[in-house]
Amino acid sequence: MKISARNVFDGNVEAIKPGAINSEVDVLLPGGLRIVATVTNDSVSELGLVAGKAVKALVKASSVLVLADGAGVRLSARNRLEGSVSALIEGPVSTEVAITLANGLNVYATITREGAAALGLKVGVAAAAVFKAPSVIIGVSS
Amino acid sequence: MKISARNVFDGNVEAIKPGAINSEVDVLLPGGLRIVATVTNDSVSELGLVAGKAVKALVKASSVLVLADGAGVRLSARNRLEGSVSALIEGPVSTEVAITLANGLNVYATITREGAAALGLKVGVAAAAVFKAPSVIIGVSS
Amino acid sequence: MKISARNVFDGNVEAIKPGAINSEVDVLLPGGLRIVATVTNDSVSELGLVAGKAVKALVKASSVLVLADGAGVRLSARNRLEGSVSALIEGPVSTEVAITLANGLNVYATITREGAAALGLKVGVAAAAVFKAPSVIIGVSS
Repeated sequence: MKISARNVFDGNVEAIKPGAINSEVDVLLPGGLRIVATVTNDSVSELGLVAGKAVKALVKASSVLVLADGAGVRLSARNRLEGSVSALIEGPVSTEVAITLANGLNVYATITREGAAALGLKVGVAAAAVFKAPSVIIGVSS
Repeated sequence: MKISARNVFDGNVEAIKPGAINSEVDVLLPGGLRIVATVTNDSVSELGLVAGKAVKALVKASSVLVLADGAGVRLSARNRLEGSVSALIEGPVSTEVAITLANGLNVYATITREGAAALGLKVGVAAAAVFKAPSVIIGVSS
Repeated sequence: MKISARNVFDGNVEAIKPGAINSEVDVLLPGGLRIVATVTNDSVSELGLVAGKAVKALVKASSVLVLADGAGVRLSARNRLEGSVSALIEGPVSTEVAITLANGLNVYATITREGAAALGLKVGVAAAAVFKAPSVIIGVSS
């Protein structure tokens, strides 16, 4: 599988919490990090998702926000991965931010150049990658 | 809180309409504008959302569409904020559009350069910022 | 209607599957392709959606992923339109990819430049445009 999602996390299904239409799927990554995905119940059955199954959690860089100085801040987004800024690529409109997590993985966020400037992002600064559970796509190779 | 979402609206919870899994949260902004957010019921309780509570409604610029000549057009997106184009920043692939609303606030949208060209956007033109309720993240500082 | 969504598909409602809060709307495009949208039940009634009705399905380029070498890959995203790469526009951070489908329509995806490089995308290569049903906005002109 080659896919344009800038963030492709290999992990295993830890738990599935079924709702009426959608299910919440917790994916456990190496190093103990978790990603929460909301997918339809149809997808759970079509992809054969069960606890332990190896999956890929895909997140577009454009779905990821960057949070700095987040102490005491609570957000409705289910995914919040803490780390530090490891790279910045600036364009005229957009900036790509790489955040390295405690487990050594990188998460990439595409944000506006002006948003990056307002945050004062620099390599080495503590920051969190924030994204909503419905932004996550689950993939399996059969 | 410093966050990369280009659109951060300070407001107060006006109403919460609970569903089986998600709730719809109406956020009232200064000047009488409203933003509708869909968040999980878990988030409603974890963030302590109740009518009147001060919150921030966060929307990534990449989640916002720009609508021109919208008379008679109805869209499934719940948020549609009318205003006029106040700034354009053009890159080779993306264009950032600022729309100033009646209450003086700006909403920012990142769209493709070709999409902006097709719309014939110029400063001063009437336009609406359109985004879906699930694209909104609610934040609180505790 | 002029809207910045890079992807605007004219079609007709084929079927509506109502849930407790949201409905799944299948839109049939010329050439037999289908797009699946998730919208609120409120939107279904406000837009007067019924089988056969002419609608526009709007998808932002930033919501679209590009999948190459997808044989045997299953994804939780409901929309997967197969075609071949017909154009690439590269910026310093973002790349716009055009994928031409079997029915002659183009789908546009904005992905990161590094993501495009990792995929080895070139004009003529087989690729699929992938997007989630909640990323689709339905529009009608009254």
